[in-house]
Amino acid sequence: MRKVEVCLSPELLHLYDVDDKIVVIVDIFRATSTMIAALASGVTGIVPVMDLETCKSYKEKGYIIAGERDGQKAPGFEMGNSPIAYLEGDFLGKKIAMTTTNGTVAIEKTKNAAHSILIGAFVNISATTRFIQNQKKDVLILCAGWKGKFNLEDSLYSGALVSKLHPHFRTDCDSAIALKSLFESNSHRLQLFIGQASHAKRLQNHGIEKDIDFCLEMDKYDFTALLQGNEISIHKA
Amino acid sequence: MRKVEVCLSPELLHLYDVDDKIVVIVDIFRATSTMIAALASGVTGIVPVMDLETCKSYKEKGYIIAGERDGQKAPGFEMGNSPIAYLEGDFLGKKIAMTTTNGTVAIEKTKNAAHSILIGAFVNISATTRFIQNQKKDVLILCAGWKGKFNLEDSLYSGALVSKLHPHFRTDCDSAIALKSLFESNSHRLQLFIGQASHAKRLQNHGIEKDIDFCLEMDKYDFTALLQGNEISIHKA
Repeated sequence: MRKVEVCLSPELLHLYDVDDKIVVIVDIFRATSTMIAALASGVTGIVPVMDLETCKSYKEKGYIIAGERDGQKAPGFEMGNSPIAYLEGDFLGKKIAMTTTNGTVAIEKTKNAAHSILIGAFVNISATTRFIQNQKKDVLILCAGWKGKFNLEDSLYSGALVSKLHPHFRTDCDSAIALKSLFESNSHRLQLFIGQASHAKRLQNHGIEKDIDFCLEMDKYDFTALLQGNEISIHKA
Repeated sequence: MRKVEVCLSPELLHLYDVDDKIVVIVDIFRATSTMIAALASGVTGIVPVMDLETCKSYKEKGYIIAGERDGQKAPGFEMGNSPIAYLEGDFLGKKIAMTTTNGTVAIEKTKNAAHSILIGAFVNISATTRFIQNQKKDVLILCAGWKGKFNLEDSLYSGALVSKLHPHFRTDCDSAIALKSLFESNSHRLQLFIGQASHAKRLQNHGIEKDIDFCLEMDKYDFTALLQGNEISIHKA
């Protein structure tokens, strides 16, 4: 039986075997939610980049450059890390280079060994679930966390995904067991529960409650986002 | 208001400030539960030791030597890591040197910076809670985990302790919020829930269900165990 595990932080990734697995990268507030929003708005490809300088260099190649640090748009960048900003603009056929505090690091650390890299977000969780169910691979859900620490929103997404995969997957990893239970006992009040999270509070201080609402909306979109080569795009089944 | 945080693994400890905090070391299966059992059985002091060789060298100083690796008694040691073995023997006035896979590492990593080190176990959780409430310090609960990974039993203890401290402490650390909820929604079936844990299964394979039952019993003892100098002993209030 296939196995699903959850790695709670990129700092713990060395303890897990990534080889030939489906890795689901999770950075709910806001990198992975924003990637899905961008793709839904017509963006054809997103290149995740580790650092701000490299990201900037994509501008002359015709990319829109998106840079976020500590929850704010980085100076000199066209876009920050707000999903709503993508929904409001015109991005049909555009390509984006994106760097974020936590999310892009998680992608960089796994992309060479993994069988495939999926972008995990509440807004397309059922599509991601279906994609995984149709593969014959073990799954590692990798929470981007916040500067190495456990965070509530990525953990709850992981629990939700484990819960959906549960009938068909072995979940004998302790973090998968814990987060499945955490999600199931809080799913009726997800918004309220995540509202306690340190990251949600940081975002509220930046006045972007709309972003939070968007990031916690379930199944707004019905497509999977997959890293292919160096670019994230919509997967056509 | 004082603050309580939970560090899910010694591998994440560098992300936390230990300085001048009360650190509660948690290794429910079985190091910290066994330490409490040993003290309850008349042992006057426990020296936690990082490695098997150093631990052995305590024998000629008159210590009982206890060594465990991967859930088994290490070759050449008098005691392993079973709490029940202490309850059954005669240990009045004895001193012990102890090394374990995960628990002693957690102590070693924090003992110099922390204000004080407490030994956390379900069997004396209320005494530990009272001790903490009477101090004026922030608290860091440090889960020993299993070889660096998150584990269910240490996490549930952490959640239980956060839950008990909650009215008097700020719990704005995401792992504290998550584990408090995890404990509260599973406290009515703790044994059953922890039975799913990878570590509990490992112990069951070693035929030591009695140890598991012991480790999950709440408030069997009403004393606090504190590291003083290099030795863990019962704290006299």
